[in-house]
Amino acid sequence: MAFLSRKRGFEGLKKVNEALELVMKFCGSKNLGSEVVPSKEACGRILEEDVVSKIDVPPYDRSAVDGFAVRSQETFSATPSNPAFFRLKGTIEAGSFAGEVGEGECYEVYTGAPMPKGADVVVMLEDCEIEGEYVKVKRAVPKFANVSLKGEDIKAGDIIIRKGELLRPWHIGVLASVGEEKVVVRRKPKVAILSTGEELIEVEDAKKVSGKIVDSTRPMIVAALKEIGCEVIDRGIVPDDFNRISDELIALSKLADMIITIGGTSMGGKDLVPEVVKRKFFLAFHGLSVKPGKPTGFGIVNEVPVVMLPGYPVSAFIGFENIAMPVLYNWTGKRHPKREKVRAIMARRIASTPGVRHFLRVTLVEREGRVFAEPIAITGSGLLSSITKADGLVVITEDLEGIEEGSEVEVELLREGFQ
Amino acid sequence: MAFLSRKRGFEGLKKVNEALELVMKFCGSKNLGSEVVPSKEACGRILEEDVVSKIDVPPYDRSAVDGFAVRSQETFSATPSNPAFFRLKGTIEAGSFAGEVGEGECYEVYTGAPMPKGADVVVMLEDCEIEGEYVKVKRAVPKFANVSLKGEDIKAGDIIIRKGELLRPWHIGVLASVGEEKVVVRRKPKVAILSTGEELIEVEDAKKVSGKIVDSTRPMIVAALKEIGCEVIDRGIVPDDFNRISDELIALSKLADMIITIGGTSMGGKDLVPEVVKRKFFLAFHGLSVKPGKPTGFGIVNEVPVVMLPGYPVSAFIGFENIAMPVLYNWTGKRHPKREKVRAIMARRIASTPGVRHFLRVTLVEREGRVFAEPIAITGSGLLSSITKADGLVVITEDLEGIEEGSEVEVELLREGFQ
Repeated sequence: MAFLSRKRGFEGLKKVNEALELVMKFCGSKNLGSEVVPSKEACGRILEEDVVSKIDVPPYDRSAVDGFAVRSQETFSATPSNPAFFRLKGTIEAGSFAGEVGEGECYEVYTGAPMPKGADVVVMLEDCEIEGEYVKVKRAVPKFANVSLKGEDIKAGDIIIRKGELLRPWHIGVLASVGEEKVVVRRKPKVAILSTGEELIEVEDAKKVSGKIVDSTRPMIVAALKEIGCEVIDRGIVPDDFNRISDELIALSKLADMIITIGGTSMGGKDLVPEVVKRKFFLAFHGLSVKPGKPTGFGIVNEVPVVMLPGYPVSAFIGFENIAMPVLYNWTGKRHPKREKVRAIMARRIASTPGVRHFLRVTLVEREGRVFAEPIAITGSGLLSSITKADGLVVITEDLEGIEEGSEVEVELLREGFQ
Repeated sequence: MAFLSRKRGFEGLKKVNEALELVMKFCGSKNLGSEVVPSKEACGRILEEDVVSKIDVPPYDRSAVDGFAVRSQETFSATPSNPAFFRLKGTIEAGSFAGEVGEGECYEVYTGAPMPKGADVVVMLEDCEIEGEYVKVKRAVPKFANVSLKGEDIKAGDIIIRKGELLRPWHIGVLASVGEEKVVVRRKPKVAILSTGEELIEVEDAKKVSGKIVDSTRPMIVAALKEIGCEVIDRGIVPDDFNRISDELIALSKLADMIITIGGTSMGGKDLVPEVVKRKFFLAFHGLSVKPGKPTGFGIVNEVPVVMLPGYPVSAFIGFENIAMPVLYNWTGKRHPKREKVRAIMARRIASTPGVRHFLRVTLVEREGRVFAEPIAITGSGLLSSITKADGLVVITEDLEGIEEGSEVEVELLREGFQ
């Protein structure tokens, strides 16, 4: 009884910018290293080594059209009234033998077919007439017309995609065209996640057990991690026990690039996570000057960053977005996608505490051609419904004491399609 | 020999806008129906049925903080100099029994703990002092302070997420919090894809076989389909054979929402795909007024749309982006992400054919603080390197005859980070 006498205070709250700067300094530039993946599965990944073509593309001179391959010089005096005649020797298809043409000879060639030896041009059908075994060419065709020359697209030794490129569908195509089945890409960040608290149960067990609280924050953060492109190591729910939490952090530090803990970051007697990190490892800060999201912390366990998020879902989300997400995007090498913004008019005055960054959930309502932001009435940061009902977030910066009714604000949209 | 005498002409080219309008009319509003997926895997999907909560959240009145649960009326005259005394009966944790307080009694309660019967307020530690078995409360606390009331976040029967919503991480959280393990979402589009042409080989076989051409267009389109969120049925390479192509189209029409064919859409004797569709099924158009990408076609096989793309990778990509992609995004219910645009100055004059929409690949170069767009010199639409080298695309609309050197153009960026 009276565990609460062990209650501690936050040792000074960190401003968001300072906290993020600190976290970035500790781990923002971590190099994840690379891994080899099949080229077909590499779309959306960051290339970690220049790709140098080992082959010429095309690998030989080939026809760029369907037509007749001849020696160009023999067409030079050809006109509709005085055509040049060529004896048709046969047909060359893409992927078949090349053949050879001598004076007065031609081959029918399909698009992609290797050029027959001796021929340096392909005459298109509209410039020809076929008469039995002979083809009449009715105009002069310049050397190499309608021929794709060996190495014209890509030369052996060319760098075709540079390190650092975000691979898109056309890169997957070009990798195939040079025969590269595998490619070296940046490894995905491995993020381990656990929730603390005996009161929690998994959603799967919700119907079996009563009086417990479904852990909804962890599935939310796992979904957010997957959106970023992380590999998630989900350790589930761990009881509020000093040694158990410590053991888990040590074990996960051997598996993950980042550890995210959920819950146990407030100031109650059972809020042990920052205490474990402080006493056994390194606690960089505990307490963020945001609302909601204050009980967010950051530390290091065996060189692995630990982001400690509060158990309340909206608080956890704000902590995650402000501290963990920028680091993870940095690591992946991808751009952190910013939410779209719209301008709106505050429908009523909202007070805020100077020095604290507030994240206000609002709905957007159109009245007489103007868009108004209506703050969602909330009684606690536990209310996930406040974020599912919201159309957007209004960020109230630390220098303000609130926002007056009628003033214009910028709203970060939480759902597509409002505009 | 002389298959080329079978060469046909395009029967009039369709303008991009007209073609897309036609395709949309045929299949743009198709309803994919729904499927049930685990809620944890539903992030990024479109909800197909309103989610109605079966439970109250919280399921009972619970403490929103760590503190002492008492009857509020007994604190009304409390001051620091004249505190109210409460006998401490025990501790209630989240997920444990609730207990009961009578006059002059209190329980220590943790965040999330059920409120003891009789108590209607939680006094925070900073407003108390503990003296052995007794807790002194030093100020009046209004009814329900620091209590989350039953159903305050969500009431049983509330619609918590509406049909049509794109599910984001916070929705995954709220689904867990109401105990919904599964959710009804829009089915993914199933797209079947095949390449035609005996000259083609798979990249895996490139080292084993010589004289053939690696099929690079199909892996590119498959990657693009996966980016959109499609399920891909990959039928590989099919020979240029009328009956074989017809059989494949019939078989795939039973499996897929859309069929994409690659290659065999030009005017050569072996370009059979549009002919098969025209003779055995329904060909809506063949030939698009774009450059590159002209040999693009569209038809219907057993009510399933068939998008016929040229074999050349860049042409295929332009055909895909202009005809297939808008349909697929329509089906998924997600927004078609537009490329970012920058303004640049044309570094040299480019001619274009009026009536034809040109997609010009350009690199961007900064000189004296101005951004110039340099067209990439190309000799054919086969050149995938033209798109991997490019920073962006300039669209030259049908009403123009080209773009003058020095004029300002809008460039659609093909890679992130140029700005």
